[in-house]
Amino acid sequence: MYYVIYRVNHCMLDQVRIVLVNTSHMGNVGGVARAMKNMGINNLYLVDPEGTASDQSAVARASGASDVLQSSVVCQTLDEALEGCSVVIGASARSRHIPWPLCTPRECAKKISQVTEHNNQVALVFGRESRGLTNEELHRCTMHVHIPTNADFSSLNLAAAVQILCYEVRLAWENTLESKEKTPQLDNVWGVDWDYEMATHDDLEHFFVHLESTLVAIKFLDPKTPKQLMTRLRRLYQRTGMDKVEVNVLRGILAAIDKNTLV
Amino acid sequence: MYYVIYRVNHCMLDQVRIVLVNTSHMGNVGGVARAMKNMGINNLYLVDPEGTASDQSAVARASGASDVLQSSVVCQTLDEALEGCSVVIGASARSRHIPWPLCTPRECAKKISQVTEHNNQVALVFGRESRGLTNEELHRCTMHVHIPTNADFSSLNLAAAVQILCYEVRLAWENTLESKEKTPQLDNVWGVDWDYEMATHDDLEHFFVHLESTLVAIKFLDPKTPKQLMTRLRRLYQRTGMDKVEVNVLRGILAAIDKNTLV
Repeated sequence: MYYVIYRVNHCMLDQVRIVLVNTSHMGNVGGVARAMKNMGINNLYLVDPEGTASDQSAVARASGASDVLQSSVVCQTLDEALEGCSVVIGASARSRHIPWPLCTPRECAKKISQVTEHNNQVALVFGRESRGLTNEELHRCTMHVHIPTNADFSSLNLAAAVQILCYEVRLAWENTLESKEKTPQLDNVWGVDWDYEMATHDDLEHFFVHLESTLVAIKFLDPKTPKQLMTRLRRLYQRTGMDKVEVNVLRGILAAIDKNTLV
Repeated sequence: MYYVIYRVNHCMLDQVRIVLVNTSHMGNVGGVARAMKNMGINNLYLVDPEGTASDQSAVARASGASDVLQSSVVCQTLDEALEGCSVVIGASARSRHIPWPLCTPRECAKKISQVTEHNNQVALVFGRESRGLTNEELHRCTMHVHIPTNADFSSLNLAAAVQILCYEVRLAWENTLESKEKTPQLDNVWGVDWDYEMATHDDLEHFFVHLESTLVAIKFLDPKTPKQLMTRLRRLYQRTGMDKVEVNVLRGILAAIDKNTLV
């Protein structure tokens, strides 16, 4: 008999729950469900909401994430919703009388990826649309997270705030997957998976020889006063990192020009 | 008499415009306006929207960001909305037949902070709620940005997508403020201290029109079976980040070809 043991990569995201306290607009709960599911987070807790997750406005904004709404857990108190959580992070817009450990969304996500390594549960807590979390609620948190905003217009939509934090959590999770074998990033600025092999130095040099002779033939380049023309063209084509097909296309164009040029 | 000279720190955010193409639901435009203003970005362009920015649903979702709605610029075509932009980044969910330079939201923000150092304008382009940007629209972009999502549920709400990108742009901006006296940037892919001003979207579009007509004239491009030729050439020249002198050199070459071509 064989036991197949495999690592479930979703675990970190499954260890995170989103807790909404006393939400007024069920449309926002729908928006939150969609934002969560987009990032692969599915555990939603509603503390004393002013409506139900099956409200039409919630389902409409969820737009395909109604499974997250349906499986949401409704609680009467914040403590109920936080049961079993080792780390509780409250979203906070204001600075408080009593300073609390405060982190950025990115630091928050890093913290989550650290604590979830050990099978801990984490809650991300969001307050009312109108006035966030009360001081009493904030004091139930391990730490606070503050999303950087324009000081003159700092109040984010609830679903937007959840979106940013879930996005950071997802990036941190993807990062843990990638760093398993940690292949060094070769700062490929164009993004990998190019469709064709890259041109080589000699492909380019042949292209430049051809380009120069064609430019002379069409009388754009005067060999007696070449100035910096070829230098500029070299810089342009070399920095763009051409693939073999692109070089072939350009050489095909040069050949067509040659054929059509008056002698 | 004193002259007070101070550095306006908002410049990077002011050089970014958000372009929404053919949006169906004006409520989403309101959500976008709020997301932008929360992050300190105020330039909104609407290409052929299915409603107006003063619609009740837009104003309601904007929730205090109606100034962004009121100052939004309505355009008939994408090219109009991109006029004057040196870098155009399109939000893309799908992988394409012809791969385009692709970046993450974080890389995208870094790129923006680099190019805006030199007074360039940047556009972030978002497509329709139902199906994003068309291939033709995507091919007008310097590069594409992809927001990482759950593969089983990848379609973000429009305002949520704008929120994530504006958030990353804001972080990059805050980072530039902090690192003012820091060491020189090493990995500026466009090359720092470029000698000439960057070409704009409209400079490039004029070049592409000229290039296409010349390729037809020299019989390299058959308008009846164009295949992917212009797409490949667009990708090549757009990703290289040309300056104005380079575009002028290339157009000079095209003019010389035209003059020398047998008719």
